[in-house]
Amino acid sequence: MSSSVSPLAPTNVPTLPDLAGVRLATAAAGIRYKGRTDVLLVALDPGTAVAGVFTKSKCPSAPVEWCRDKLKGGSARVLVVNSGNANAFTGKTGRQATTLTASIASKAIGCKPAEVFLASTGVIGEPLDATKFDGVLGKLAETAQPGGWMDAARAIMTTDTFPKVATATVKIGKTKVTINGMAKGAGMIAPDMATMLSFVFTDAPLSASCLQALLKAGVADTFNAVTIDGDTSTSDTLLAFATGAAAKAGAPKISRASDPRLKAFVKAFNAVLADLAEQVARDGEGARKLVEIIVDGATSQASARKIAMSIANSPLVKTAIAGEDANWGRVVMAVGKAGEPADRDKLSIAFNGIRVAKSGARDPSYNEAEVSAAMKKPEIQIKVSLGLGKGRDRVLTCDLTKAYVEINGDYRS
Amino acid sequence: MSSSVSPLAPTNVPTLPDLAGVRLATAAAGIRYKGRTDVLLVALDPGTAVAGVFTKSKCPSAPVEWCRDKLKGGSARVLVVNSGNANAFTGKTGRQATTLTASIASKAIGCKPAEVFLASTGVIGEPLDATKFDGVLGKLAETAQPGGWMDAARAIMTTDTFPKVATATVKIGKTKVTINGMAKGAGMIAPDMATMLSFVFTDAPLSASCLQALLKAGVADTFNAVTIDGDTSTSDTLLAFATGAAAKAGAPKISRASDPRLKAFVKAFNAVLADLAEQVARDGEGARKLVEIIVDGATSQASARKIAMSIANSPLVKTAIAGEDANWGRVVMAVGKAGEPADRDKLSIAFNGIRVAKSGARDPSYNEAEVSAAMKKPEIQIKVSLGLGKGRDRVLTCDLTKAYVEINGDYRS
Repeated sequence: MSSSVSPLAPTNVPTLPDLAGVRLATAAAGIRYKGRTDVLLVALDPGTAVAGVFTKSKCPSAPVEWCRDKLKGGSARVLVVNSGNANAFTGKTGRQATTLTASIASKAIGCKPAEVFLASTGVIGEPLDATKFDGVLGKLAETAQPGGWMDAARAIMTTDTFPKVATATVKIGKTKVTINGMAKGAGMIAPDMATMLSFVFTDAPLSASCLQALLKAGVADTFNAVTIDGDTSTSDTLLAFATGAAAKAGAPKISRASDPRLKAFVKAFNAVLADLAEQVARDGEGARKLVEIIVDGATSQASARKIAMSIANSPLVKTAIAGEDANWGRVVMAVGKAGEPADRDKLSIAFNGIRVAKSGARDPSYNEAEVSAAMKKPEIQIKVSLGLGKGRDRVLTCDLTKAYVEINGDYRS
Repeated sequence: MSSSVSPLAPTNVPTLPDLAGVRLATAAAGIRYKGRTDVLLVALDPGTAVAGVFTKSKCPSAPVEWCRDKLKGGSARVLVVNSGNANAFTGKTGRQATTLTASIASKAIGCKPAEVFLASTGVIGEPLDATKFDGVLGKLAETAQPGGWMDAARAIMTTDTFPKVATATVKIGKTKVTINGMAKGAGMIAPDMATMLSFVFTDAPLSASCLQALLKAGVADTFNAVTIDGDTSTSDTLLAFATGAAAKAGAPKISRASDPRLKAFVKAFNAVLADLAEQVARDGEGARKLVEIIVDGATSQASARKIAMSIANSPLVKTAIAGEDANWGRVVMAVGKAGEPADRDKLSIAFNGIRVAKSGARDPSYNEAEVSAAMKKPEIQIKVSLGLGKGRDRVLTCDLTKAYVEINGDYRS
């Protein structure tokens, strides 16, 4: 639905290599709009381990409930993602739709329904007619190919203005393994809410519990450190799959996340997550500025996170950034409302490296023209030093523009 | 600097009667802009009790710290309010400015500095030149009159689009007492943040501790149940003053908030607070809709409050209201992200009395045209029934419009 690509879109988009054990295919199933690609099927070789993290919403979508339940098995053979309908707040029919989709997918692949993973994004409160997958998933399973990652990333877009992919290669022992990931971000299918979906794949031979531990640790400073508007979708889903295919090339099977042989892999895995999460922020609804918020000198890292999130979610801070205004007064306000330890008279605040406030007052040495020029950049860093302790954290967000209100408010007017 | 009055402004504005023991005067002291009224002095007769509640910000303004400290004395002789400069985040010079202002005011009135109460709103991070009050406060003390409440309410406005006043008369025993109040709301003096200031006066003979207890109880469901954008000013201040002048007319002196003779007074006092708080919501920056959110069936009242606030502060809900869209999916989202007990499949949601969702799915009986018509009204009620317990609560907010982003983001561009 978006007409123009975000000015914050990455300029270098990588070509994702084939990944042993993963085949992809997309189709137009007519879930909501005719003629647009709206289904992605990812076929996974036997022995694929799966891990997942989901929305913390107390009112999750039916596919989120399905995946949470099936994660217990630890094994995946197919992922089915549709856009056009989120199958959220659809009551009993929502559960029936996930059951039917999984049944169709399991027959198409030849696996148990418990090895089918599902994600849906789009309109909510409308029943998802899963019979539309009948026939479609069978054909996709037959035609799925190792390539086509960019098509896959496009199929799961809603009003994202660009497809989001990331990749890394790294060695476990002496064997090269690959990590490929895709995400969709805070886009919209009118009249509904933003949803974050992300899927990461590797051929590394990792156990499900190892992958789950890596994923849980990895999201803390990546996907969980990004906020667009502080709202949380009922459908947010991040699934990771490890096909284990690299074992044939000599990669050791690894069952513990703390295994020292995983050191380089963990770094690369987290970098893929960080890359995807940053792209989500870069494509925030109406975003014109990518905003990095760094808080240091807090009493703990958790305290620094709370303060950083308070700043990142403050409409007054976000509108100031949109107005290219180094409004440190609003940053003080957001620090103050976080409820965490802070001493007004020890606070320092810098925008893009230029300190504008120190020791509880305006920094008398700062140059207004220099700050104004810095605020025109597409990437803004706000650094807050509390001067209390060693707690440090970083979150990413974007500015709040009139385009955000337009995208989210104007479609019926 | 708003050009037009909010479409949500009350149509009937009461004329506030004189209140024995209170005299008011305003002046243009040139705090920030020349020629605009920016100082209010309220002279209070000896024996006036004072109570206050303030921002929960960990980085409060210098006047907030001054008032908190002086409340211990329980006695007030003068209130000085200025617009144009909030004296917030001004370091040591902020404390010096409050001390100097209080010194000038105490000499003007003939009282102790500890009986001076201060509030400031406007630009932050700029030193407040309190020498500007020299001479001005003396003249105001001489010329202060029992009337002029509306001028006083105007003097404390920043970008409020209308002055906010409320009044009530009620009996304590057989004696009529009066309650007069004024507030300023979420207005702006570029380039700074919104601040809520409110001052309530009565001639009832109440002790300071009684008044403090009444105020603390009274704000819970009034000022603390209103949110514009979830942001909290460093300067939010609500002060209450009881001159006790009605004792001469026979009103009994009351020292406990639980005194049964106060029953009618408490009701009227809370009604004044509720009236002022609602006017603040009606004048939210860029607001075009007043939004009342009622949550019932929660596991407790506190839980209902958290869920109601989560809905009220959700940018996606607020932009939907601006777009006149009964987007109950976003309401479900906001319920889900509150983190409080909720069962998706028991939720019911109604907009202006029309149920659009029940039992975890769209209400099949609702009429889209009827809902669309209801959403065009200037006042929108969202009612969420959780179906879990007896917890109920209510909060007020407004919609999120492009005008909000303009007011808060565009002034430098």
